[in-house]
Amino acid sequence: MSEEKKVGFVTMGEATEVEEIPTLKIGILGYAFMGKSHSNAYLKQNYIIWPPAAKAELYAICGRNEEAVKVAAKRYGYKKYYTNWKDLVSDPEVDIFDNSGPNNLHYEASIEAIKNGKHVFCEKPLALNAQQGKELFLAAEEKGVKHMVDFNYRFVPAVRLAKEIVESGEIGEIYHFRAQYLQEWIIDPNFPLVWRLRKDVAGSGALGDLGAHIIDMARFLVGEFASVMAQMKTFIKERPLPDNPDKKGTVDVDDAFAAVVEFENGALGTLEASRFCHGRKNYQYWEINGSKGSIRFNLERLNELEVYLAKEGEPKLIGARDIMVTESFHPFMEHWWPHGHIIGWEHAQVHAVYHFLDCVVNNKSVEPYGASFRDGYRSLVVEEGIAESAQTGQRVFLKYEV
Amino acid sequence: MSEEKKVGFVTMGEATEVEEIPTLKIGILGYAFMGKSHSNAYLKQNYIIWPPAAKAELYAICGRNEEAVKVAAKRYGYKKYYTNWKDLVSDPEVDIFDNSGPNNLHYEASIEAIKNGKHVFCEKPLALNAQQGKELFLAAEEKGVKHMVDFNYRFVPAVRLAKEIVESGEIGEIYHFRAQYLQEWIIDPNFPLVWRLRKDVAGSGALGDLGAHIIDMARFLVGEFASVMAQMKTFIKERPLPDNPDKKGTVDVDDAFAAVVEFENGALGTLEASRFCHGRKNYQYWEINGSKGSIRFNLERLNELEVYLAKEGEPKLIGARDIMVTESFHPFMEHWWPHGHIIGWEHAQVHAVYHFLDCVVNNKSVEPYGASFRDGYRSLVVEEGIAESAQTGQRVFLKYEV
Amino acid sequence: MSEEKKVGFVTMGEATEVEEIPTLKIGILGYAFMGKSHSNAYLKQNYIIWPPAAKAELYAICGRNEEAVKVAAKRYGYKKYYTNWKDLVSDPEVDIFDNSGPNNLHYEASIEAIKNGKHVFCEKPLALNAQQGKELFLAAEEKGVKHMVDFNYRFVPAVRLAKEIVESGEIGEIYHFRAQYLQEWIIDPNFPLVWRLRKDVAGSGALGDLGAHIIDMARFLVGEFASVMAQMKTFIKERPLPDNPDKKGTVDVDDAFAAVVEFENGALGTLEASRFCHGRKNYQYWEINGSKGSIRFNLERLNELEVYLAKEGEPKLIGARDIMVTESFHPFMEHWWPHGHIIGWEHAQVHAVYHFLDCVVNNKSVEPYGASFRDGYRSLVVEEGIAESAQTGQRVFLKYEV
Amino acid sequence: MSEEKKVGFVTMGEATEVEEIPTLKIGILGYAFMGKSHSNAYLKQNYIIWPPAAKAELYAICGRNEEAVKVAAKRYGYKKYYTNWKDLVSDPEVDIFDNSGPNNLHYEASIEAIKNGKHVFCEKPLALNAQQGKELFLAAEEKGVKHMVDFNYRFVPAVRLAKEIVESGEIGEIYHFRAQYLQEWIIDPNFPLVWRLRKDVAGSGALGDLGAHIIDMARFLVGEFASVMAQMKTFIKERPLPDNPDKKGTVDVDDAFAAVVEFENGALGTLEASRFCHGRKNYQYWEINGSKGSIRFNLERLNELEVYLAKEGEPKLIGARDIMVTESFHPFMEHWWPHGHIIGWEHAQVHAVYHFLDCVVNNKSVEPYGASFRDGYRSLVVEEGIAESAQTGQRVFLKYEV
Repeated sequence: MSEEKKVGFVTMGEATEVEEIPTLKIGILGYAFMGKSHSNAYLKQNYIIWPPAAKAELYAICGRNEEAVKVAAKRYGYKKYYTNWKDLVSDPEVDIFDNSGPNNLHYEASIEAIKNGKHVFCEKPLALNAQQGKELFLAAEEKGVKHMVDFNYRFVPAVRLAKEIVESGEIGEIYHFRAQYLQEWIIDPNFPLVWRLRKDVAGSGALGDLGAHIIDMARFLVGEFASVMAQMKTFIKERPLPDNPDKKGTVDVDDAFAAVVEFENGALGTLEASRFCHGRKNYQYWEINGSKGSIRFNLERLNELEVYLAKEGEPKLIGARDIMVTESFHPFMEHWWPHGHIIGWEHAQVHAVYHFLDCVVNNKSVEPYGASFRDGYRSLVVEEGIAESAQTGQRVFLKYEV
Repeated sequence: MSEEKKVGFVTMGEATEVEEIPTLKIGILGYAFMGKSHSNAYLKQNYIIWPPAAKAELYAICGRNEEAVKVAAKRYGYKKYYTNWKDLVSDPEVDIFDNSGPNNLHYEASIEAIKNGKHVFCEKPLALNAQQGKELFLAAEEKGVKHMVDFNYRFVPAVRLAKEIVESGEIGEIYHFRAQYLQEWIIDPNFPLVWRLRKDVAGSGALGDLGAHIIDMARFLVGEFASVMAQMKTFIKERPLPDNPDKKGTVDVDDAFAAVVEFENGALGTLEASRFCHGRKNYQYWEINGSKGSIRFNLERLNELEVYLAKEGEPKLIGARDIMVTESFHPFMEHWWPHGHIIGWEHAQVHAVYHFLDCVVNNKSVEPYGASFRDGYRSLVVEEGIAESAQTGQRVFLKYEV
Repeated sequence: MSEEKKVGFVTMGEATEVEEIPTLKIGILGYAFMGKSHSNAYLKQNYIIWPPAAKAELYAICGRNEEAVKVAAKRYGYKKYYTNWKDLVSDPEVDIFDNSGPNNLHYEASIEAIKNGKHVFCEKPLALNAQQGKELFLAAEEKGVKHMVDFNYRFVPAVRLAKEIVESGEIGEIYHFRAQYLQEWIIDPNFPLVWRLRKDVAGSGALGDLGAHIIDMARFLVGEFASVMAQMKTFIKERPLPDNPDKKGTVDVDDAFAAVVEFENGALGTLEASRFCHGRKNYQYWEINGSKGSIRFNLERLNELEVYLAKEGEPKLIGARDIMVTESFHPFMEHWWPHGHIIGWEHAQVHAVYHFLDCVVNNKSVEPYGASFRDGYRSLVVEEGIAESAQTGQRVFLKYEV
Repeated sequence: MSEEKKVGFVTMGEATEVEEIPTLKIGILGYAFMGKSHSNAYLKQNYIIWPPAAKAELYAICGRNEEAVKVAAKRYGYKKYYTNWKDLVSDPEVDIFDNSGPNNLHYEASIEAIKNGKHVFCEKPLALNAQQGKELFLAAEEKGVKHMVDFNYRFVPAVRLAKEIVESGEIGEIYHFRAQYLQEWIIDPNFPLVWRLRKDVAGSGALGDLGAHIIDMARFLVGEFASVMAQMKTFIKERPLPDNPDKKGTVDVDDAFAAVVEFENGALGTLEASRFCHGRKNYQYWEINGSKGSIRFNLERLNELEVYLAKEGEPKLIGARDIMVTESFHPFMEHWWPHGHIIGWEHAQVHAVYHFLDCVVNNKSVEPYGASFRDGYRSLVVEEGIAESAQTGQRVFLKYEV
C-alpha cells in the first residue's frame, strides 16, 4: 500500500485486478428531481466505487410525457423509454424497478413490479398509507425480491458514523432525540397549488415529505416510537391553481407539524417539519443526547458531525468536536477524494443504490443499514399516529403489525 | 460631541452635569447564585449607566445562616444583615424588596413585603403555583407598589433587538417559534437530591427552572399561548441524599419536558427543556419564523443575533445575518464598551435592575419590556397546562384569569 | 415555466429539444487523484449540464503502469489506453489533451500536444518554472489552440459569486486580501519522501501545491501582484524513502511559506500555505475587505459565502450574511439540485471542464473566468518572487513578460 | 463542599471566614475608555474574587478637564480628583499609579511615579518607543516597585487555558502562529483625524494599538521573535480635523500592517492588524499549530477555545473541540457564574487588576502570567522592527537589550 493511501487515496488509481462485474438492468419510473438523482447515482456508482458489486445498466426510463422522457433517455443514456409504467414493470429485461414516480403511483406500480419478480427500489413514501405499505412488504417478502425504500440520508457518511457511535455505546443510553426538517419554499401565498400540496397525489404535506425523513432517522438511530402527541398546521389554506392562477384551490395537506414523541426505550423526542421557515433551505437537523455524550447533525453541512464525549480525556479540554467526516476510514469516504475534499447531497444516493445493488447481486438483506419496506411501513404508522393525535388532541400509542 | 462617541463611546468619560441622584434602599433575601448576581447588578448599575435613574443603596441582606450572611454583607457592602426574612420585609428603611430566596419563599415573603408597601423585585418563578401568582399580582396592584419578576433574558440586548424587529414587522406574521433550554448538570445518577430536584422547595424541575424562561420568551416575542400538548420525563427516579449519600430519596420533579404549543395568533411552537443534554451548558436557543424573515438566538453566544430577511436587497446576496449586537445604537449597549467588546451573562441583570429602579423612582409601568407579576402569573398558568397535558395525554386549552 | 422551476429545479426533467450535440475526444495523461477527478468531471458534464456545449468522449487514457492504466480505462470507460504519453499526444483522434500527469511532465507533454494541434487542459502548476510557462502560453497562442490551467476553484459557485460581487462594486475599493491554504498530512516525521516532497518532480512544496491556488484566487479576485516579502520553512528536513523506509532522503521543498504582498491597486495582502496545520484538512480560506464590505470563503464549507455589506439597509440589522450559494440563480447551480441540497468539491471540476469544452467547441476565450496559460505563467512569476524573497530577505518587485 | 460547587458555584455564597483584607489606594490618570474599564475592574474585583488579595480603594482620579474629572470621581466613587498628573503621582497616599492616560504621557508620568515609589500599572503601549520602555523597566526594577503593562488579553480565561495547553506539551512543538487583529472604525474617509491617528500622541496606528496585543499574545504563547518582514499601509492619507472639519490634516500613522515573522524556536508566524476591515468589530484571532494539535481563539467569542488534538482517542472521532471555557475548573471562572453563563470583555481586566494587586500586596513577580515592563519593552522592540522592515523592504533581525 503506497503512502498516499494512508491519507485517503485508497481507490483512486489502483490497479485492482477486476474480474467480470455482473450487470443489473435498471428500469426507472420518473425523470424529474428523483429520476435525475437516481440516474446520476447509478452512473456514478459504476466507476466511483471500484469495483462495484454490480454494474448498473441504465436500461429503460418511463414517464407520461413522451417528448420529455425521450430527452431524459438520451440525457442519461437509457436504452429504451416507456410512457406507460405497466410496460416498464412487465418488461422481462428489467432486473430492478426504481420507483421514482409520483407518490400516488408508489403502491400500484411497486406491487405490480413485485408480482413480476422485480427487485424494487422505491422512493419514499413507500405508499399513501400504512395499510398499503404493509401489503407491499408482505408481497415482496413472499415473492422473495429485494425491497428498499429510499431513505437516502441513512447513507450520508456522517449519519452512518452517528449510527456507529450509537451502536458502540460511546454516547451511552439515549435520553433525547430532537429533529427538525425545515424548508422555506411555499411561504409566498401566491405560490401555486402544486402536486406536493394536494392530498390525493402527495398523501400529506410537510409530514410525509420532510417528516418521513426525520421519523426514519429517529428509528434508525434511536429505535421504535411508542407514542406521539402532535399538532399540524396549514397556514395558507387556498392557493392559485398551477394551470389557472386566477382561480384558487384548497390546500388539503399540512404546511407544518410538530410532535412530542416517546420511544420504546424511554427516550423523549421532538419532531418538527415545516415549509414555512425563511432561511432554512434544506435544513435537516437532529441531536441525540445520551448518558455519556451527544451527537448533532445538520444536512446543510453534511460533511461534518458534532460529537460531544463527556467522559473522554482531560476535563478542561472537553468540548463539542466538529468532525470532518471525510477521512478514508470514515464510512464510504474511501471511494471519494482525499480528506477535506467535501462531498455533496447527491453522494448519499450513490451509496444507497450501491447498497441495493450489492444486496440484490449478493443476496443480502438491505437491513439494518438500508431501509426495507418494513421500515417504509413503520414510518407510515408513525405518520398516521401523528396525524391522528393532531386531530384528536390525544396522545396516540403506536402499534406495528409487521 | 467628540468623534469617539460616534463609534460608540457615548457615556464613557462624559462630563454630564449630574443633579442629585435619588437613592433607593435595597433589602435582599438570599446570597447564593441569585443574591450574588443581583448584588453585582445593583453595584454596577450605579456607575455604568450614567447617570442612573436612581442609586441603589445596598441596605440589608437576609439569609438563614448568620455566619454566611455576615460575610455576604461585608462582601457586597450591605449595611445590615438579617437571618429572618420577616425582619427584612418589615424594616421601614427598605424601599425595594429583592426576593432572591428559595422558590418556596417567593410567595410568602413577597406578599408580606407588599403588605408593608415595599416594591418587589422577585426571582422567577413568581410562586409555586398560578393561584399564588394571581394573588401576588392582585395584592401588588391593590397596594400600588411596583412589581417585577426577574425574567432577566428580556434584558439581553440581542433579545430586546429581536423584540424590536418583531414589533417593527420586519419579519412579518409569525408562523413558528421553537425554543430549547438545555443543560447537562444532573446526568450523573450519583448527583445528589439537591433542592432543585425536590417538589416541595422548587415546585417543579426543568419545567419551572428552565422552561419558565422560554415560556416567557415566547410570550414576550410571539404572544399568548392558546393550547399545549406535552410529555414530561424523570429519567433518574432516585438519587443520594445530599447529607447522607448512602441513602436515596425520590426525585419528584421532571428532568425534562417537551411541548407542542399553539399561540393565540395561530403560530405553532415547540418548547423543550432538559438537564440531561451533554455539551449544553446553559443553552437557551430559540428561533422565530415569520412571513418575511427569521430570527435565531443562542444564549451561549448572547452578543449575536441571527436575522434572515427574505425580502431585502439583491436576492443572490440574501443570507442569515450574524449581527454583533454591540453597537452603541443597539439596545443598552451605549452604556458599555466600544462595539465588538462583548458583554456577559450578568449584564442583562444590570439592565433589569436599572429598569425596575427607573420604574420605581419615576412611577412607570414595568411592562411591556419588563415582566410584571401578571407575566409571572401567566407563565405559571402555561407551566400548569404543560404538566396537566403530560399527565392526561390530552391537549390543554389555557385560560388566564388576570 | 412550471412553478417548481422557480424554486430551483430548472433543468431537472425538462423536455428541451436537443439538437445533435457535438463530441470532443479526450486524451488524458494520469489516472491518480486528478485523473479520477477529471474523468468524473467529463462523465458528469455530459448529462448534468443539459444540453452540454459538447459531449466529452472518453477516448484514451495514459499511464506508465500498464496493468493500472488498463483498469482505469475500464473503470471510466476510455476506449484506449497508452503507456507512453508521446503516443497519446500524437494520436490524431485526440481533440483535447488533458494533462493530469506529474508536474515534471506538464511542460514537456503539453508543448508536444500543442505542436500537434491539440487543445490543452493542464493541471496546475502549468510548468516547473515561469520561463517554461511563458513558452507554453506563446506556443499555444501561436498555434491557435485553446489552453486552460486547471485552477478549478474559480469554478466553485461561491467563488464565482464573490467575483461577481467584486466586479459589481458592491464591496467597493479593495483594501485587504488575506488567504491561507492549510493542510495537515505530512506532520508525522515518518511520513515518507513522496513525490510531492521532491523538487525534481514537484517543483516546490506547499508553495506550488497550495500557494498556487491562493495566488490564483488573489489574481482572480483582486488583481495583479506588485511586490512580495516572504519566508519559507522546511520543518522536517529528512524523511524515510518510500521504497526503503530504513533510509532517509532530503526534503528539498518547502513545508510552509508565508508572504506579505502588495497589489498593483494598492491593496495589502497576506498569503500562507502549510502542510503542518493539524485540524486543517483542505482548508482554503480567504477574506477580502473593501471600502463598502467584506467577503469570506472557506473551501471546507464551499456552499457558503460570507458577505458583509456595511452600507445596506437598517444599521442595527447589519451583520455578516452567511449565504447558502445553492439557489438556481447562483452561478452554475441551476444544473444541480434544489436549493439547500449542497454540492461537493468535485463539482467545481465539472464546471471547469464544461467551460473548457464550451470554449473549444464555440471558439471562445477561456478568460476571464477560466485561467489561461498566461494566468498559469503569471502565478509562476509570483511563486518565484516569493521563493526569491524568502532566500534574500528582501522585498521583490514582480515583472510579467506576457 | 456542597453539590452545587461541583457544577461551578464555588465562591457564590460561601461563608468563608474573612480576615482583615489589606487595602491599596489607587490613583488613576484618565477617565475615558480605559479609565472606565479600570475603575470597573477595581470595583468588581473587590467583591467578585472573594476574598480578594487586597481591597482596591478608589482614591484619586486625574484628568485635564475639571468638570469631567469631577463627574468621573463621583461616578466611580473616587475620593479625590486632580487635574494635573504631577499632583497625582506625588500624592503620598497613592499606593498604585494606574496610568490610563494618553500614550504620550505613559513614559513621563510612569517614570515620575516610579521615582515616588509608586507601583505602576500602565496601559499599553508602555511608551512611545523601545528606548523609553527600557528606561521604565530599569527604573522600576531599581526602585523595587511592581510594574505591569496592561496586556489584558493574557487574563481572558480561554487565553490562559491556551497557555496551559502549550506549556503542558499537549499540542507539541509549535510550527505556526498566525494572528489578526482587525477592526473597522476608520474606513470612512470623513472620519476625523482623532488622536489615535496622530503619531505625536499615539506613537503609531494599527501597529501599536492592535498589533501590540497580538505581538504580546505571540510572545506569551510561542516565545521570542527572531526576525520580521513587514509592509505598512496608510490608505487614507488626509482626514478632516476634529475641531475644524473643513480643514484636513495628514494621517502620519499606519492604517494597517502585515508581517511575516520567525520565532527563536523556529516557528513561522504571520501578524496583521487593520482598522479597515468591514464586519470585524474587535476581531482578534489567532491560531497555533503544533506537532500534536492546534489551538484557535477569537476575541469576539472569548468564552470559547477551539482545540484540535490529533493524537487523542479514537481516530474517527477526532475533530476540533469547541471548548466552552466556563467551567469552575477553568482559569478564573470559579469566581463568576455557573458554567455556560458567559463573561464579557471587561472581565479579563478584573483578573488583570486582581493579579497586580496580589503581586503588590504579596510581593510576587507579575511574570510570567502578567506582562512586566520588560514585556512592554520587548513588544516595542518588535514594533520598531516591523516599522523598519516596512520602510527598508528588508528582513530585520531583532535584539533585546533587557
